Amino acid sequence: MSGTSRNSPVLFEELTSPEFKRLARKGPLVILPFGSVEEHGSHLPLCTDSFQAEEVARRVALEFGAILCPPIRYGQCRSTRNFPGTLSLSFETVRGIATDIVSELGRNGIDKVLILTGHAGSGHMEALKEGALSALERRPGLKIMVLSDYDIAYDLRGKEFPENDGHGGLIETSRIMNIRPDLVRSSRPVGTTRPPRFMVLVDPERHFPTGIVGDSREASRTKGKNIDDYVVDRLCELVANNFGLRRK
Amino acid sequence: MSGTSRNSPVLFEELTSPEFKRLARKGPLVILPFGSVEEHGSHLPLCTDSFQAEEVARRVALEFGAILCPPIRYGQCRSTRNFPGTLSLSFETVRGIATDIVSELGRNGIDKVLILTGHAGSGHMEALKEGALSALERRPGLKIMVLSDYDIAYDLRGKEFPENDGHGGLIETSRIMNIRPDLVRSSRPVGTTRPPRFMVLVDPERHFPTGIVGDSREASRTKGKNIDDYVVDRLCELVANNFGLRRK
Amino acid sequence: MSGTSRNSPVLFEELTSPEFKRLARKGPLVILPFGSVEEHGSHLPLCTDSFQAEEVARRVALEFGAILCPPIRYGQCRSTRNFPGTLSLSFETVRGIATDIVSELGRNGIDKVLILTGHAGSGHMEALKEGALSALERRPGLKIMVLSDYDIAYDLRGKEFPENDGHGGLIETSRIMNIRPDLVRSSRPVGTTRPPRFMVLVDPERHFPTGIVGDSREASRTKGKNIDDYVVDRLCELVANNFGLRRK
Amino acid sequence: MSGTSRNSPVLFEELTSPEFKRLARKGPLVILPFGSVEEHGSHLPLCTDSFQAEEVARRVALEFGAILCPPIRYGQCRSTRNFPGTLSLSFETVRGIATDIVSELGRNGIDKVLILTGHAGSGHMEALKEGALSALERRPGLKIMVLSDYDIAYDLRGKEFPENDGHGGLIETSRIMNIRPDLVRSSRPVGTTRPPRFMVLVDPERHFPTGIVGDSREASRTKGKNIDDYVVDRLCELVANNFGLRRK
Amino acid sequence: MSGTSRNSPVLFEELTSPEFKRLARKGPLVILPFGSVEEHGSHLPLCTDSFQAEEVARRVALEFGAILCPPIRYGQCRSTRNFPGTLSLSFETVRGIATDIVSELGRNGIDKVLILTGHAGSGHMEALKEGALSALERRPGLKIMVLSDYDIAYDLRGKEFPENDGHGGLIETSRIMNIRPDLVRSSRPVGTTRPPRFMVLVDPERHFPTGIVGDSREASRTKGKNIDDYVVDRLCELVANNFGLRRK
Amino acid sequence: MSGTSRNSPVLFEELTSPEFKRLARKGPLVILPFGSVEEHGSHLPLCTDSFQAEEVARRVALEFGAILCPPIRYGQCRSTRNFPGTLSLSFETVRGIATDIVSELGRNGIDKVLILTGHAGSGHMEALKEGALSALERRPGLKIMVLSDYDIAYDLRGKEFPENDGHGGLIETSRIMNIRPDLVRSSRPVGTTRPPRFMVLVDPERHFPTGIVGDSREASRTKGKNIDDYVVDRLCELVANNFGLRRK
Repeated sequence: MSGTSRNSPVLFEELTSPEFKRLARKGPLVILPFGSVEEHGSHLPLCTDSFQAEEVARRVALEFGAILCPPIRYGQCRSTRNFPGTLSLSFETVRGIATDIVSELGRNGIDKVLILTGHAGSGHMEALKEGALSALERRPGLKIMVLSDYDIAYDLRGKEFPENDGHGGLIETSRIMNIRPDLVRSSRPVGTTRPPRFMVLVDPERHFPTGIVGDSREASRTKGKNIDDYVVDRLCELVANNFGLRRK
Repeated sequence: MSGTSRNSPVLFEELTSPEFKRLARKGPLVILPFGSVEEHGSHLPLCTDSFQAEEVARRVALEFGAILCPPIRYGQCRSTRNFPGTLSLSFETVRGIATDIVSELGRNGIDKVLILTGHAGSGHMEALKEGALSALERRPGLKIMVLSDYDIAYDLRGKEFPENDGHGGLIETSRIMNIRPDLVRSSRPVGTTRPPRFMVLVDPERHFPTGIVGDSREASRTKGKNIDDYVVDRLCELVANNFGLRRK
Repeated sequence: MSGTSRNSPVLFEELTSPEFKRLARKGPLVILPFGSVEEHGSHLPLCTDSFQAEEVARRVALEFGAILCPPIRYGQCRSTRNFPGTLSLSFETVRGIATDIVSELGRNGIDKVLILTGHAGSGHMEALKEGALSALERRPGLKIMVLSDYDIAYDLRGKEFPENDGHGGLIETSRIMNIRPDLVRSSRPVGTTRPPRFMVLVDPERHFPTGIVGDSREASRTKGKNIDDYVVDRLCELVANNFGLRRK
Repeated sequence: MSGTSRNSPVLFEELTSPEFKRLARKGPLVILPFGSVEEHGSHLPLCTDSFQAEEVARRVALEFGAILCPPIRYGQCRSTRNFPGTLSLSFETVRGIATDIVSELGRNGIDKVLILTGHAGSGHMEALKEGALSALERRPGLKIMVLSDYDIAYDLRGKEFPENDGHGGLIETSRIMNIRPDLVRSSRPVGTTRPPRFMVLVDPERHFPTGIVGDSREASRTKGKNIDDYVVDRLCELVANNFGLRRK
Repeated sequence: MSGTSRNSPVLFEELTSPEFKRLARKGPLVILPFGSVEEHGSHLPLCTDSFQAEEVARRVALEFGAILCPPIRYGQCRSTRNFPGTLSLSFETVRGIATDIVSELGRNGIDKVLILTGHAGSGHMEALKEGALSALERRPGLKIMVLSDYDIAYDLRGKEFPENDGHGGLIETSRIMNIRPDLVRSSRPVGTTRPPRFMVLVDPERHFPTGIVGDSREASRTKGKNIDDYVVDRLCELVANNFGLRRK
Repeated sequence: MSGTSRNSPVLFEELTSPEFKRLARKGPLVILPFGSVEEHGSHLPLCTDSFQAEEVARRVALEFGAILCPPIRYGQCRSTRNFPGTLSLSFETVRGIATDIVSELGRNGIDKVLILTGHAGSGHMEALKEGALSALERRPGLKIMVLSDYDIAYDLRGKEFPENDGHGGLIETSRIMNIRPDLVRSSRPVGTTRPPRFMVLVDPERHFPTGIVGDSREASRTKGKNIDDYVVDRLCELVANNFGLRRK
């Protein structure tokens, strides 16, 4: 199969139809990465969420011989939706994408699906879960796992990293320094968001002056590498347990 | 701006929020490529449509200093929807993606949008157009162009290429040999689809034995390069005329 | 059965419930004509599309002993939607009508349905096809054919008729002179539409000065009769092949 | 204006775009007739509801110089939905048709719309009213009247006609004898429906043995003519009052 | 089972999951009361509709050992929708509530459901019926009854009560004097609504000066008690017949 | 105003239309409580979530002179949706209820709305937030706060209460002992839920043997009172800050 080197997992987009058919018979895991186009401070690129999820997905796919789907680099963004550069999808659209792709994987005989999203907004996460549930109703035999890599990365808050680190902060800056160092600008902003708690707002950006949460000044590639390794390791454990698979 | 070399246009995903804000003020064209995950014979990869649209989009973006959005590598596939490897979105989902992204570009002050799709199924095309119209209703100042690169490439049928060439045939095979030669397998299938005309079918694949339309045997990289050059040239003319832009 | 003379096919609306029940058992074809209320120049009536489809449907129904449904004289009109007199339905509404009526025909034991539309706008056509597909999912035994009579009539372009003839032009004017001569006004407009190619527009009429495409000056009833005969003949062949029926 | 004789009102479908434009400036009433394809006993045709509404609409249009829209001969049918020959639309589809057509009339500068339906099912009526309300939200200047001709005809029950007359009964049979005598079969059924009161049923036909309500045996064309005259007269009064119009 | 005294039926909300499971096996009737938050004159509270339906539901539940669901005190209000204090739900929302709750009762093994609404607006009633029908499609074994207590109470018009009594009038005022005497204010308004007949209006309140229909001056608790007794008795008969149940 | 004693806040349902109109002019807070009908172990009633939210809402309303809306005692329940007694609404329905009611409050001139839900499922919470956002788009002047009382109550975990306490556990049992002691059964279950992490499941109950999370054995009314006091106090602070109101 062409297009697949040692560091690249099997890519859905590069397979031919007959190759996919043969592979699908072996019961592989299929991974679908989601991201967002979303403001991430003055130092990080708009697809920060995508780069992280795709890197983790790539590494996990290699460990399990999984097939990697073309990523969806868009998501529903609520708190950053009015910032320049954010391109937010609606709840319905995110849910529709998840329902359609997972249902189609089911039609193709795939029974193990991991949706990994780098964007972890609560509306976005629910849209993915509702979409997965709808697909499950159409294809009851499916096993579907839905999470953000930040569901794992934020385990490290309160340990090596500050409790209040968040969007575009120390962890995220370090990770992008590891994954796409060419894309990290020289500024190292510090910030937080203090919207009135529990208020549903039309202008959340008013309470979010630098558009990031945390202190990116101590970010480093080494930190990023450690976090990424941790996320990949933990996710591999979860995948192995949830789907009954063994790492290669 | 990092991440942008001589051969790479400005990528939306690599910009920071403030960089995008500055760029947006200059009135740039923004290009959104669509593709599909769809059976393309025994010799071409499932994302054949995406590779072509993204390559054309890249080249056109370079010519106009346009910003290239992250591609959507999925589409609505009707005639191939039951083949192994096809992952078809619903009409609503394709429309929703187009509406949401174009509306958000409008919110960001962008007024020139080109949706270029490598997949040219009629349902898919209509979903994109309906989506663009909905965005236009929300953002009346927008100028939106929606086409498939095959709306141009098929000009060449009946000239250098057979009239009946189509999905996965001579033109498409040649183009992928130019764009992603590593992904073209050694088989060179010949085929056609002969569904009963105008019937709406649940099993269109029954009438589509090799899953391609045309004769891929004479495909060559040179042919592909010529087609791609033609498509890019014609599209640049159209873009220049429609948006009042000049090539760099 | 009353109401059915030599020149009238069996009309759905004129049957009683028990009569329909008896007829349905024989496996008849059912034809559902669609049209539009749409600007057609200064010389043709707003329901030009309907008159043509209904006339063709009538003649085809007679040939096969088909049952003719009450026509839907409305459709989705995009390029003419801002002209006086156009009454455009939304994509959803056209799709819903097609889904509902075809599903109900299926519930009634009908297994052969022809949707014939005189309006051939691409959004309208897709709405009909998507609607037919939805009905097919509910009633898998159905055979459904969806086309515009212009899918056939435009075969004649580049032969007896100019390649660039279109909406309200020579062919359409001639046909209405044959079908409803009382409704053709004395003007014989000439025109074309030159919208910027592939642009999705809020004001397509700006590029469509006379609201017609072609040159209606040479239109004649004889030409119209020939076209109508051609359309009916070709459609009868298609119907015979697709549904395995014989002309009476 | 061709196509309009002494007994025919101005028909929307027969006008050209410029003719309609001129007419619309005068502030005419526009009438949109709805019907149904619905079981009506062994003696009456499936489009019984349509024939009545269209006849009344024609006569009222003549009185006020109104423009008559192409009828929609389909409706939502709940109690008869499982009978042979019924073709029921969904609530959404009926509502969508009403919303779209009335909105488009509003876009065309029409400000007086009468929706007259021959089918009077409660779900169908609500769908029309909800559709009219949606159109009103988009076009606040509109005046819209929505009723069934049976909202008037049933005034006569308990007077000249039995209190329990209904669907396909004495009144309806007489009216069709007046309007379309060629379509009334020789049987004269008697029947009633006795579903358990207030139950929402999947099989309402089980409680509806002859599919009609009332005793059609005494039906006559004279009775039908009297009813139709009554309905037209009363409706003309209502139209005159509600829209501030005068009969010609 | 705690919480259930002689005058309180079994309340769904007070049962535990295992208690409900045991009860459900016995095939009980489940009653779901609906109301509205709606203007009811200067003398009656906004939830007048709810108080009546809930009182009737309580008494009927006691008679049949039925389980009483938590009420939905909101409904779709059309004619009063612009009055202060009215909180109207959309058609879709009312339908969705009915579909979801009844479907879930079906999933729980319940096969007898009574939806009793104190609000009797025609759109509201249709939304409940359409919702019940959707639930029935998912759970075909269900028996569902949908009515307003005013479908019964208005039997008394033209007998003990004036024919033209209505919203907030003599019957309704008397009933609230019986059910919630503490909530009836001292004013006793008289009024009627005279909207132009059959018009669909954006401002129905303009034709509804006191917001009530009828003459509340002779209202009394005794009258109210008699009406409530009548409604409960008649509803018990209907329930007994429709569901094959016996009063305790 | 009748119906309002020292311990009862102003109830929306008990106000008349003119009373509400007068009150609304003063800019009051309006509180809308949501709950659920949901399995809560063998010891707690199905409307446990409602009882808590309504009690907190009542107390907060008293503190601020707020108007209390009729509660919605239903919600979207995902993890418990297959247990006996759970009646789960769909995402759309919950969102629709929130959109409609909050929009209508906005139409009535209310500008301060608190949605307090006792059910804290993530899909349910998102549905409420998405609904509130939609209402905000229609009524931009609104201030809307959406939270679960468990967003506050769970502050106490890791302090006086175990970190792993949850659904039907020590905190919830104690609170119901305080609020509705008559409804707490004598069993004191212990349990947890151990679904495979991040899996989207059709049968979550398989991993949830007792249907509760935590150890209810040490529950007491005193603990419950302390928690409730804490929740009310904290919520009052939040309300005071977010809406600029002062406690009475």
